[in-house]
Amino acid sequence: MSALFPDKPRIAIIGSGALGCYYGARLAKAGNDVHFLVRSGRAAIMARGIRLKTPTERIQLRKVRSYATSAEIGPCDLVIIALKATANDMLPKLLPPLMGENTLVLTLQNGLGVEEPVAEVVGGEHVLGAICFIGCTRTAPGIVECSFPGLIMLGEFGRPAQGRTREVARLLEKAGVKCEAQDNLEELRWKKLVWNVPFNGLAIAGGGITTDILMADEGLRTLARRLMEEVVEAAAKFGHVIPRSFMDQQFERTGKLGKYSPSSLIDFREGRSIELEEIWGEPVRRAKSVGVPVPRLEMLYWLIKRLLAARKTNGKRR
Amino acid sequence: MSALFPDKPRIAIIGSGALGCYYGARLAKAGNDVHFLVRSGRAAIMARGIRLKTPTERIQLRKVRSYATSAEIGPCDLVIIALKATANDMLPKLLPPLMGENTLVLTLQNGLGVEEPVAEVVGGEHVLGAICFIGCTRTAPGIVECSFPGLIMLGEFGRPAQGRTREVARLLEKAGVKCEAQDNLEELRWKKLVWNVPFNGLAIAGGGITTDILMADEGLRTLARRLMEEVVEAAAKFGHVIPRSFMDQQFERTGKLGKYSPSSLIDFREGRSIELEEIWGEPVRRAKSVGVPVPRLEMLYWLIKRLLAARKTNGKRR
Repeated sequence: MSALFPDKPRIAIIGSGALGCYYGARLAKAGNDVHFLVRSGRAAIMARGIRLKTPTERIQLRKVRSYATSAEIGPCDLVIIALKATANDMLPKLLPPLMGENTLVLTLQNGLGVEEPVAEVVGGEHVLGAICFIGCTRTAPGIVECSFPGLIMLGEFGRPAQGRTREVARLLEKAGVKCEAQDNLEELRWKKLVWNVPFNGLAIAGGGITTDILMADEGLRTLARRLMEEVVEAAAKFGHVIPRSFMDQQFERTGKLGKYSPSSLIDFREGRSIELEEIWGEPVRRAKSVGVPVPRLEMLYWLIKRLLAARKTNGKRR
Repeated sequence: MSALFPDKPRIAIIGSGALGCYYGARLAKAGNDVHFLVRSGRAAIMARGIRLKTPTERIQLRKVRSYATSAEIGPCDLVIIALKATANDMLPKLLPPLMGENTLVLTLQNGLGVEEPVAEVVGGEHVLGAICFIGCTRTAPGIVECSFPGLIMLGEFGRPAQGRTREVARLLEKAGVKCEAQDNLEELRWKKLVWNVPFNGLAIAGGGITTDILMADEGLRTLARRLMEEVVEAAAKFGHVIPRSFMDQQFERTGKLGKYSPSSLIDFREGRSIELEEIWGEPVRRAKSVGVPVPRLEMLYWLIKRLLAARKTNGKRR
């Protein structure tokens, strides 16, 4: 099979949060032709570049090709969407200028139902999705601290992995990102929810707590397990079998994170938007659509929704 | 049947929060011999007395017989416990000096399992309990604002109403407190939980919200109904049948309260203790003991417990 990408594929990174900076800088350092669409903090990124700090590395991308509009970037081989899903209403404007005949669009967004709005704009055959198992935060524009580089699991939207899926995986691997092409993206999304639903959710609903506090609280730890079980039961109705051992692993992994602030908690505290619908709302709706009761998940959804509404009223949103 | 009480019964009021001041001042104004055990704010109460404001009345009790210890009060005909249940570890010290052969001890405490610790100290045959359907807050020592005078439902601990129950009810009625003697105190307690569990609980877990905000939030309103249903289902297993119409009434009543802060929310905000176990913990344990699943109630219990723990850590407790 002939390679899909040229030696130095043209890549657009949409969004300059933690994930966009992290993967984009790595891809650029690996010699790819990377173009960043930056909405905020562009001056800072142009002035000092992007800096990544991982437990074992310090990476600096001094010269960042940053743009304010996607029309300035033009067609690419690969477009990586590293925006929050809450910004997806901008996709119809952002994506078309980046599309060529064979352009692949890879969304890194969290939660359920995130490929669909991309597919609506560019056509489902162009769409890939990824689940990023990573712990990283943007501490300032272009500055990313990565406590847990983790890995990416990559899949096609509504199809098993293709040759091109494995090519994208190799591209990322060459850039130092552990990456696996997978045949069932939807199942992966449910699996990621097994962690995100309880740990991101209870971090907010529990009053703004890091994972160490949650893990030390017997009630919340049991609740996290019950929430996981609700997600797993709903996933099973859609044909995605997630073993109990997977849930156990989540607790083990979380115990090792120490005093970790889930990304939704950081966003909540800093007044940024949160993937309320993709992480909690959509799983509730899908579970109920197939008759799986998810009382705790639904309660968590309603509570977070309320807490977000209160934050807006208090004028802290930005 | 001969009257239990003399013309001017000797009454001790234990606790000088909103309820202690409200009922105590009314009983004193009605000509009873009322003695207040006051733990905090005694100087203010001695200086300016107790003042009540209701939607229709302003009542002032200028001369308040207040005491720092129950030994100074001595035996009474009726002892009214208006302490928080969280202070019940003080009962073995507080109650014995107040007891005579026929002394009745009436606890106004909220929630389940509040008569038991009184009975352990004074013997179950002396114990009455009451459910206070009232909306009132203490704005300063001895100053009580009552938005909704409501009524008291009175019963015996583990027995149907007796002649003496009705005498206590009459005593309260004469003091301007609407009061009904009831045969099944335990059932009343479950019924009060039907309101307290969701509305006190979600006021805290929802980020500190008044009832109007809860009633306007579709998710939380549905959640309040689900929580009520869990309480009702648990109560049913203990033989207490609470009709759906009772739940409907709670919503109607709450809609009329407007921007009302449930007492637990006020206490939470002001760093005071909350009847966590009596309102949420004990119902969860009783429901589970008879095999009734109460996922939302248990989740609410765990979340409030966590939020209280965080408050302590933040050093706001007093």
